[in-house]
Amino acid sequence: MTYSGLIGKLLEATGTSVGDVISVTRGKEKTTGVLMPHHEFSSESIITVKLSNGYNIGVRIDGSSRIGLISKKESKTLVSRSMPTGDSKKDVAVISTGGTIASYVDYRTGAVHPAKSAEELVFSVPELMDLCNIRAKVLYSILSENMTVKHWQGLANAVADELNGGAAGVIVPHGTDTMGFTSAALSFMLRNLSGPVVCVGSQRSSDRPSSDARMNLLAATRLCVDSDLGEVVVVMHGESSDTYCHAHRGTRVRKMHSSRRDAFRSINIDPIAKVEGPETSFIGQYSKRSSGPVEVRDKMDRKVSLLYFYPGFEGEHFDLIASHVKGVVVAGTGLGHVSEEITRSIKIAVDNGVHVVVTSQCLSGTTNLNVYSTGRDMVAAGALPLGDMLPETAYVKLMWALGQAKDHDAVKKLMLTNISGEICLRREV
Amino acid sequence: MTYSGLIGKLLEATGTSVGDVISVTRGKEKTTGVLMPHHEFSSESIITVKLSNGYNIGVRIDGSSRIGLISKKESKTLVSRSMPTGDSKKDVAVISTGGTIASYVDYRTGAVHPAKSAEELVFSVPELMDLCNIRAKVLYSILSENMTVKHWQGLANAVADELNGGAAGVIVPHGTDTMGFTSAALSFMLRNLSGPVVCVGSQRSSDRPSSDARMNLLAATRLCVDSDLGEVVVVMHGESSDTYCHAHRGTRVRKMHSSRRDAFRSINIDPIAKVEGPETSFIGQYSKRSSGPVEVRDKMDRKVSLLYFYPGFEGEHFDLIASHVKGVVVAGTGLGHVSEEITRSIKIAVDNGVHVVVTSQCLSGTTNLNVYSTGRDMVAAGALPLGDMLPETAYVKLMWALGQAKDHDAVKKLMLTNISGEICLRREV
Repeated sequence: MTYSGLIGKLLEATGTSVGDVISVTRGKEKTTGVLMPHHEFSSESIITVKLSNGYNIGVRIDGSSRIGLISKKESKTLVSRSMPTGDSKKDVAVISTGGTIASYVDYRTGAVHPAKSAEELVFSVPELMDLCNIRAKVLYSILSENMTVKHWQGLANAVADELNGGAAGVIVPHGTDTMGFTSAALSFMLRNLSGPVVCVGSQRSSDRPSSDARMNLLAATRLCVDSDLGEVVVVMHGESSDTYCHAHRGTRVRKMHSSRRDAFRSINIDPIAKVEGPETSFIGQYSKRSSGPVEVRDKMDRKVSLLYFYPGFEGEHFDLIASHVKGVVVAGTGLGHVSEEITRSIKIAVDNGVHVVVTSQCLSGTTNLNVYSTGRDMVAAGALPLGDMLPETAYVKLMWALGQAKDHDAVKKLMLTNISGEICLRREV
Repeated sequence: MTYSGLIGKLLEATGTSVGDVISVTRGKEKTTGVLMPHHEFSSESIITVKLSNGYNIGVRIDGSSRIGLISKKESKTLVSRSMPTGDSKKDVAVISTGGTIASYVDYRTGAVHPAKSAEELVFSVPELMDLCNIRAKVLYSILSENMTVKHWQGLANAVADELNGGAAGVIVPHGTDTMGFTSAALSFMLRNLSGPVVCVGSQRSSDRPSSDARMNLLAATRLCVDSDLGEVVVVMHGESSDTYCHAHRGTRVRKMHSSRRDAFRSINIDPIAKVEGPETSFIGQYSKRSSGPVEVRDKMDRKVSLLYFYPGFEGEHFDLIASHVKGVVVAGTGLGHVSEEITRSIKIAVDNGVHVVVTSQCLSGTTNLNVYSTGRDMVAAGALPLGDMLPETAYVKLMWALGQAKDHDAVKKLMLTNISGEICLRREV
């Protein structure tokens, strides 16, 4: 939240913004610290300042108050000076993007706002600092429904910088709504990982007693510190109670409930690992840490649409969308089917050079376009079935493949090549 | 399959089509019966005829053969003359629409074709006739991905005719791909049900040893004969083994696996009933049979689109679609969210008189647009959240509401009114 009223004017007059070091003078009292965002449940006349001891205080401002700018904030990094570090502990980076895990509830309206800094986030779970040295950074402060390809690219590069700068792992606090898309994007963009990249969210904000933020963050940290994992994963509650967390492969995970704490599920595979207290047990196969360096292949072509088929889906609708893009991901019914009308539209699109790839809206199971005449007609029209790949992962991958591959055939080949555990074409029906 | 070659020419010359009673003469041999569809694994020179004893035989046709038309088929009804009936048993109607449950495998190509008649379907499970008198009819013979609103309307009227004609229940063999859409459509179109309407499918065609057709059909029949249910349900395997079936409420069921026999799941509620052998046990609340008559309210407005939101979904895409329709169902992320860009597009659509309703692509859980600023902005833009209604059910219902209600406000009111168990707005987050 931004400041309004008198405080807003005083800040504007001195060119001060959140994160800058300021002084606030009122009568004889002078307070120095970092300007924090306005909390909506504070009065309009209160300014919030983080002191050097780590505490936030609210200072009342009136006509006699003065605000001075001492120094501008250093880029987006807000590393706390009071955060303990030790040579015997590993470094873990926290790159916050926003979302509920980095939010607070406005108790006046009941609404949740993305407001906390990565630093505050880390301080809310002090046990993290017993496990490792934390390097905290706020990269974005957005609700995840506003994430775009550009955000994924910036995040991939920030993650690689941290790993290549010696971090044992990177924790990415993220809104849960589109966390599965981001984890898929990072899975394709980051190669040769020297440590785990752990996207972590919460379904209840950390200032609520029922918050899952603390346990999820602790589990994420343990994976970074204790495991030899070299993959992008999503770590969330494995059950609705505070028993254990699951680490899900970044290309295989989907939010399957709008509010439960165990909303995230691995689809078509088991979770990679279970993290229960200090114990991490791996369930399936996984890629181990490389010796580095991490490579970033972040080029994507945004001109892709994801279309869920349904009865009555009009060919005209498909044609309209397909004429604006280079790739269409179809989430067909059952084994990947669409109607005869849409099969004709697929043929038109493919003939015009558009990639049309096929997944199943059932989510679980695999496509198979060899069983029914519908499927064989779709293949004849040029549709490319993607086995057991999630529709959302296919959408992310097609944008990535169009950004990476040199020509049409190379895109098709890349779509059918397993890059990061996203596809198994040999599954039986 | 249609006949080609010499047989095709002979049939065309006599104006004969599948279902007609014909005579086939070759030398001294004369065969009389009903002309059956060409089986793809038969030779092009073989014609298939159903004899009066119920058996199908193949007759080789050459230049000396003659085909005569004895009588045209009676509409679409193919009631077997040899099907046993008894006064002590209840009447159950079987209205087949096609799909795997009414299909056969072409063992030459391995592909599945919709070919069997309702009669053949019933004869493949002779135990059905011990339970009831079967009235079998082929209404459609299509793969369910080709179902449209017109098919739903024809089916609703056929079902009502059977119930109002004294059937204790109606079984609707249906392709599994879009069976959940059809069951939702029937749930809204049919009121005051005097018996169960049971959509039933199979994931393996009935000529395969692993077929689930037999058990699903038997369970459907038991519901029709033994229960007091007065709802539209989907009956399918409750587990992947042949242990029991579940009856799912027609507005709450979704195909969640592309191939497993227990692919169908009730979302956000328990199944209505478990059918294990001869025993039916009801799990939750359900509507009981009325004393009739069944009413049909089948008017629908097709001008509705269902859009799954994802990161990078372009406002231009939304605007294009919204400008062609009267209603848009958004399957948002998490509690029903979309990006700021799409919120702006929602406002444009709503300002142009388009209904924009919101569901969650998580599928499980409920929408709640009061928790985050995103949601509140969506509501301010005019979006209408639909609680725990499935996106697919919301799509069907919005077409129906637009066909039923007189004005804009009446459509909104109808969308928030529980018609057939599809919505519970009081669910907690």
